[in-house]
Amino acid sequence: MIKKNVLYAQSGGVTAVINASACGVIETARQHKDVIGKVYAGRNGIIGVLTEDLIDTSKESARAIAALRHTPSGAFGSCRFKLKGLEESRAEYERLIDVFSAHNIGYFFYNGGGDSADTCLKISQLSKSLGYPIQAIHVPKTIDNDLPITDNCPGFGSVAKYVAVSIREAAFDVASMAKTSTKVFVLEVMGRHAGWIAAAGGLATENTGDAPHIILFPEIAFNERQFLARVKQTVDEYGYCVIVVSEGVRDKDGSFLAETDTRDAFGHARLGGVAPVVAQMIQTKHGYKYHWAVADYLQRAARHIASKTDVEQAYAVGKAAVEMALQGKNAMMPTIKRISNKPYKWTIGEARLARVANVEKMMPRHYISKDGFHITQRCRNYLQPLIQGEDYPPFKNGLPQYVKLKNVAVKKKLTHYPSPIVG
Amino acid sequence: MIKKNVLYAQSGGVTAVINASACGVIETARQHKDVIGKVYAGRNGIIGVLTEDLIDTSKESARAIAALRHTPSGAFGSCRFKLKGLEESRAEYERLIDVFSAHNIGYFFYNGGGDSADTCLKISQLSKSLGYPIQAIHVPKTIDNDLPITDNCPGFGSVAKYVAVSIREAAFDVASMAKTSTKVFVLEVMGRHAGWIAAAGGLATENTGDAPHIILFPEIAFNERQFLARVKQTVDEYGYCVIVVSEGVRDKDGSFLAETDTRDAFGHARLGGVAPVVAQMIQTKHGYKYHWAVADYLQRAARHIASKTDVEQAYAVGKAAVEMALQGKNAMMPTIKRISNKPYKWTIGEARLARVANVEKMMPRHYISKDGFHITQRCRNYLQPLIQGEDYPPFKNGLPQYVKLKNVAVKKKLTHYPSPIVG
Repeated sequence: MIKKNVLYAQSGGVTAVINASACGVIETARQHKDVIGKVYAGRNGIIGVLTEDLIDTSKESARAIAALRHTPSGAFGSCRFKLKGLEESRAEYERLIDVFSAHNIGYFFYNGGGDSADTCLKISQLSKSLGYPIQAIHVPKTIDNDLPITDNCPGFGSVAKYVAVSIREAAFDVASMAKTSTKVFVLEVMGRHAGWIAAAGGLATENTGDAPHIILFPEIAFNERQFLARVKQTVDEYGYCVIVVSEGVRDKDGSFLAETDTRDAFGHARLGGVAPVVAQMIQTKHGYKYHWAVADYLQRAARHIASKTDVEQAYAVGKAAVEMALQGKNAMMPTIKRISNKPYKWTIGEARLARVANVEKMMPRHYISKDGFHITQRCRNYLQPLIQGEDYPPFKNGLPQYVKLKNVAVKKKLTHYPSPIVG
Repeated sequence: MIKKNVLYAQSGGVTAVINASACGVIETARQHKDVIGKVYAGRNGIIGVLTEDLIDTSKESARAIAALRHTPSGAFGSCRFKLKGLEESRAEYERLIDVFSAHNIGYFFYNGGGDSADTCLKISQLSKSLGYPIQAIHVPKTIDNDLPITDNCPGFGSVAKYVAVSIREAAFDVASMAKTSTKVFVLEVMGRHAGWIAAAGGLATENTGDAPHIILFPEIAFNERQFLARVKQTVDEYGYCVIVVSEGVRDKDGSFLAETDTRDAFGHARLGGVAPVVAQMIQTKHGYKYHWAVADYLQRAARHIASKTDVEQAYAVGKAAVEMALQGKNAMMPTIKRISNKPYKWTIGEARLARVANVEKMMPRHYISKDGFHITQRCRNYLQPLIQGEDYPPFKNGLPQYVKLKNVAVKKKLTHYPSPIVG
């Protein structure tokens, strides 16, 4: 086998555990020095590959690479940039192949969601037709949990845990205050298209009456009347009401709630999220004092409360990607296969990228209760194992110690190529 | 010594560790069964005392009481209700004494901030003049860190840790995305009058260039021009900018930023917080893509990332309150006394309530950098020890296990008294 280099790149919104996948890729590659040369990384994802701005990870110590496992977000930089189809963007794909060729890349690992699976597949197709063979393996990552075939997506379990923990804690707070003060608490979570993250909030409910009392899913058209009635019923019964709202909640006409109601006095684009809209709606109707929170990046960066299961799976798919490449596989993605729920057992499987690219896994309707306001037992059975276990990062002076890599650039060999994004 | 009962009540906004103080009070009282009878708690704070709605904590197992140490928020309910002056509210004070007398209360422990210190003092004064002696001890608690004399306030250290951890994690996220997407992240934190919590975000900065790059304090009049210039300078230098903004930030005329700009199209009271206002301001001027988060209750309920120092101090002031009462002290508050910074050493001191009530400890100007955008080394020296150590709660099924007490009511002995708050 001829010794080839690896190119690894991170894509799209980062997660608490995408670096654990990077760690899996790099540590596994370093164990195969007989067949793998260096591991390069694209600086800021595929943009770094296009512009030949590569990082030489061999300059990082074993300790620094090991620390990636407990460091959130994208250590090499990620990017929001989707390559278009082969016809439209042929020049860009050809440039990628040129960069691969110039740096003796034999293995390309692209760590991302649906878009990057598509890019990864196209690269593998084009490299074949251009006569520069690349083994392109996609490493799954997305907090949205919307990749098909795999049981779940690394990154999701940790957001799920953050949301479930946060809603439980905030609910204890509201319950303490409800008698004379705040009666309603609204937490806004991510998930523009699918309610997986909102659903995870439902895990905090273990007994009847436990928060959250209401979950608003993007899958269920928002019905203001029914919602407000349920809020009142909950406050009447338990004294307070805790709500998880997905940023993607829409009304029956398909408009985002957050977009319709939050223009400011000057007509500026929305300032607020959907949480204040929902909270205000309740106050107007029922007069309850409210508080609301928008977790935003905190939810996907919260490595301090990451799911151990998620960290292990993120590492495992990185490791598996390298092993699959060494087995000669191409245009594939390692997947997580669930073997059993109780106890939770899983293994690594694999899927052809042709079956992954451009397929979005939605939340099944039977995961949402009939009234549309909570999750079902089946949903709970699915979600519960994904938040299992804690995997605390090391702390110093009261703060988590995350690694910042040196990210030494690889010497360029090609002519300048302008970045397709002005950053 | 005649055996008397204890009455404990929680007041004001709850914290991640106020129950640790409750635990300290109850466990210590249980160790002195020769002189202390039962420990009662006011249901929903002083409201429960006024309405004779008391909880018998002797019905709780030792294990349940021990679990209070790792359970956030107010296990007996708190309340937002301030008794007015003795003249205005004499009837209410007299009712309190009636309740104390009916239930053989000899020791009153009031766990709260400045307002409850004032109430506690007045109760002790009145009980003397009415001839029913009560030993009233105030147990300090407030995330605002604004009580005088004590080195810090239990509850603050855990919020401080949450904010510092969160801003560090979010900063890693933004740094990953900044090349092609989000360049600015704004985290809104609590602190309407003082910047202690915002300042704590500054602990995340350990090296030049580390986030947060800008902190907006209530103590510093907001200067839009200087602020926007600093944001641009930061993005130019580091590629991104992370900002902590206190909810209490005001412009030079003293108006809250959050109030001035966020009326919705219908002129409704503010929907959003100050974070979206600041973020929008930046986008309008510089065009940077932004994200913002409002932590709200999550920050003060986040027991999962509580400061070990804070938990220990919260427990210690509860314990000390009981010991002080048994030493015959009255109208006092246990304080935290700092002995040294490195290593951090502290002990329990005490303060007369007359010196605590109605005195607000502000953040010294020399804790804020000259330019008004960050903390100084002196501030860091003060804050750093308060976030030291982790004290994770037990987890089961991926979630923290917090205790819900039975909260069995004590049989009423007096005539009905209407609640001064319609809840």
